[in-house]
Amino acid sequence: MSQKYATRAEDYSKWYNDLISRADLAEHSDVKGMMVIKPYGYAIWENMRDILDAKFKETGHQNAYFPLLIPKSYLSKEASHIEGFAKECAVVTHYRLMSDPNGGGVIVDPSAKLEEELIVRPTSETIIWNSYKKWIQSYRDLPILINQWANVVRWEMKTRLFLRTSEFLWQEGHTAHATKEEAIKETEQMLDVYAEFAETYMAMPVIKGHKTESERFAGADDTYCIESMMQDGKALQAGTSHFLGQNFAKAFDVKYSDAQGKLEYVWATSWGVSTRLMGALIMTHSDDEGLVLPPALAPIQVVIVPIYRTDEELQLINDAVAKITAELKDLKVKVKYDSDDQKRPGWKFAEHEAKGVPVRLAIGPRDLANGVVEIARRDTKEKYAMNIDNIGHSIVELLADIQSNLFQRAIQFRKENMHEVDTYEEFKTQLEKVGGFYLAHWDGTKETEAKIKEETKATIRCIPIGIPSETGRCMVTGAPSKGRVVFAKAY
Amino acid sequence: MSQKYATRAEDYSKWYNDLISRADLAEHSDVKGMMVIKPYGYAIWENMRDILDAKFKETGHQNAYFPLLIPKSYLSKEASHIEGFAKECAVVTHYRLMSDPNGGGVIVDPSAKLEEELIVRPTSETIIWNSYKKWIQSYRDLPILINQWANVVRWEMKTRLFLRTSEFLWQEGHTAHATKEEAIKETEQMLDVYAEFAETYMAMPVIKGHKTESERFAGADDTYCIESMMQDGKALQAGTSHFLGQNFAKAFDVKYSDAQGKLEYVWATSWGVSTRLMGALIMTHSDDEGLVLPPALAPIQVVIVPIYRTDEELQLINDAVAKITAELKDLKVKVKYDSDDQKRPGWKFAEHEAKGVPVRLAIGPRDLANGVVEIARRDTKEKYAMNIDNIGHSIVELLADIQSNLFQRAIQFRKENMHEVDTYEEFKTQLEKVGGFYLAHWDGTKETEAKIKEETKATIRCIPIGIPSETGRCMVTGAPSKGRVVFAKAY
Ligand SMILES: [Zn+2]
Ligand SMILES: [Zn+2]
Repeated sequence: MSQKYATRAEDYSKWYNDLISRADLAEHSDVKGMMVIKPYGYAIWENMRDILDAKFKETGHQNAYFPLLIPKSYLSKEASHIEGFAKECAVVTHYRLMSDPNGGGVIVDPSAKLEEELIVRPTSETIIWNSYKKWIQSYRDLPILINQWANVVRWEMKTRLFLRTSEFLWQEGHTAHATKEEAIKETEQMLDVYAEFAETYMAMPVIKGHKTESERFAGADDTYCIESMMQDGKALQAGTSHFLGQNFAKAFDVKYSDAQGKLEYVWATSWGVSTRLMGALIMTHSDDEGLVLPPALAPIQVVIVPIYRTDEELQLINDAVAKITAELKDLKVKVKYDSDDQKRPGWKFAEHEAKGVPVRLAIGPRDLANGVVEIARRDTKEKYAMNIDNIGHSIVELLADIQSNLFQRAIQFRKENMHEVDTYEEFKTQLEKVGGFYLAHWDGTKETEAKIKEETKATIRCIPIGIPSETGRCMVTGAPSKGRVVFAKAY
Repeated sequence: MSQKYATRAEDYSKWYNDLISRADLAEHSDVKGMMVIKPYGYAIWENMRDILDAKFKETGHQNAYFPLLIPKSYLSKEASHIEGFAKECAVVTHYRLMSDPNGGGVIVDPSAKLEEELIVRPTSETIIWNSYKKWIQSYRDLPILINQWANVVRWEMKTRLFLRTSEFLWQEGHTAHATKEEAIKETEQMLDVYAEFAETYMAMPVIKGHKTESERFAGADDTYCIESMMQDGKALQAGTSHFLGQNFAKAFDVKYSDAQGKLEYVWATSWGVSTRLMGALIMTHSDDEGLVLPPALAPIQVVIVPIYRTDEELQLINDAVAKITAELKDLKVKVKYDSDDQKRPGWKFAEHEAKGVPVRLAIGPRDLANGVVEIARRDTKEKYAMNIDNIGHSIVELLADIQSNLFQRAIQFRKENMHEVDTYEEFKTQLEKVGGFYLAHWDGTKETEAKIKEETKATIRCIPIGIPSETGRCMVTGAPSKGRVVFAKAY
């Protein structure tokens, strides 16, 4: 462990990259902008996915799978959709390779050119609504409540592991409804599912809100989001839920006949979270020693390390550990016994710390004689002796305490870094000095929003829901404002 | 239900397509060769995936994720790999679209041409071994036991839902080992995992064996497979496990230093099953009324249909059903109460039959008065009354009986359609008359294998493991044979 890693204070960005490497979560592949998610990182993502998937099913959604490749012409059917973002994408033009007649290797077979190019999905609204057109005739076919777990590609020139990669994994919900009200209710329900997941499982506090018009998803009438604060004070958009109005129904001509036989366009939503959540998780809790994981998402919640000199001592420890792990497994605690005799305890301690295992439990012969084990909490770095009697329940309580402590700590951090400002001068001066979220009045115009972004690099993260605010006057123009909005620099 | 569906006897191929549509499993998309897996079909696939995933983890594997797009040059690094199959694939040549200057829509931005084309993965050996090169230095880094759940694309001109599609979902295991013996053991272990899954959960008997050299995976030293018999007598390869020798290690220069510090090439395996299993499942059990599902994979194991005239009757039935479903859920039975009052019982019966729900339970007022429900078994179409007392346990036993009956029925069918033949004349005449598997002697040469395939369209499905056979003489050339091999026409 002689390698020097950056601390957050020294170089936040390098700290992030170092941490991902130390914790063995992911790495850049040789394919520009695309990452390899390594087993430990993928195990955390799997935990997120399984929890979210259960919540989607509880709220009545079913999974399905739609094609990876989308005909180019579909993308331009919804005008603002293609304007908005669908330009930077991977284009499939050919369907065959051939041996290079001039040497080794393969070349693209020029005779195998597609009549119409196919696009690797950057999101699936278009291909899905093309199917929904066939599936929907009557109000009896509604609602359609479908989710898809998939990979998507959006070409990125500047990438960061998990936060911005050309390929990422995500889920995308796509629902169809008979009424506007029902679609808005769905949009809001899924925002709540995301917020509850973020706070309960990721221990990451979020602010729910609406995006401004200029920050909306391309093709949406309204984009809801959850925004969380990272340890450098920047905002990270952790999930979005879009009310798509009738835009895609009109683009793909999807109508249903209501109970009276009248034809109406269908109302739509879409909503998604991605492997970006991994970046949010890392930057919410981790410290200079490495990853810190909330127990609810940790692939290993408790690691046990034996401390011994002789085979006899090891035998005694093994026997005690067998009982402890059985007890923990009964209580559904994810426990690992790290009995690797090729590595010293100190090396293991650093390793498990870097990987963010919430609880470490060290056992030596003297501990056993005293009927205790040594506990180390990853979140607070406290160490203390814990009785072996009834250790299962003690550990379950400890894990719950860690989960809650991480959330409280993050709430506290956000509180300390949330500023109310009333003048643009104050905003600019403050923002220069410290990051964080700035609650300020805005006149509701694109022009003012653009000016602020241009001059300060801060954007309106959301028009918050549930943060009470008085009316006021825009900090830039002095025009009336209905309430404070959240400004921040963002990932 | 006035639509006329093909029976197996009338038109097996149309029966298959009709069934997928009736059971609402999947459909062709407008993207050539690519399918949409609909919620009910996807739910079955999810069940398969979850069971397999647990088995992979039990045998020490971890999931990870590697890039979708592979640099073209990687594919030609392992010479026989590219020769074998990697030619028919989707080629990404550009990374941006632009608005068409001559009108609406978008065109490919000619300035956004990739220096090296990227291939949508047809399988991931090359991109994964390019990573393993960085991960493996010493014998301490081995074994690497990784699995990936992913989508892959292999361009197909003639497609059939689930059986042959240009995009499909699969898992691909990729392992790296220090010794040849360990790699072969892994290859065989994963074959056993597949065989056990097929027989225990899919209720589909399989023959394990080796592929002949000409049927091997491109880049493998040995391909093991499981072969199952469909109801038209054709064989379907349901899973493969490849011993890759040191071929990919040599192609990507992956060496490890052993305990003595000597550098050695790493040994490899890969193994996979795909959404093709859905086709196998359908064709093993289903009948002219629709899908027949083994309970172990059924998204709905028991459906309950109320039979009533008045609201009072319905109320009584609802109360009884509430108790029954609670009892069934306690026993982890997947039960659905189909109380939709817009559809008549007869319509529902046909619907659940088409979807292969293993057990249907109808309840009317007279049944309730007698303390019974009416059971209909999907597999045997038997109907009988079952006591409501202790119904949970009766249903659990019934589901187990159905699972076992389906397997026994498939075993019996295979037995009846497995022929031993000793002369090529007999082989050809018989094969013309009835399908099935033919156990015959073969001289072990590519030439004879090719001749048989050319003349009869039957291929060697495998050199079977565990089917005892005497030595003999090749039915074509009369040259010595070490044992009978399995011939059949195949999907
Ligand atoms: Zn809004
Ligand atoms: Zn073999």
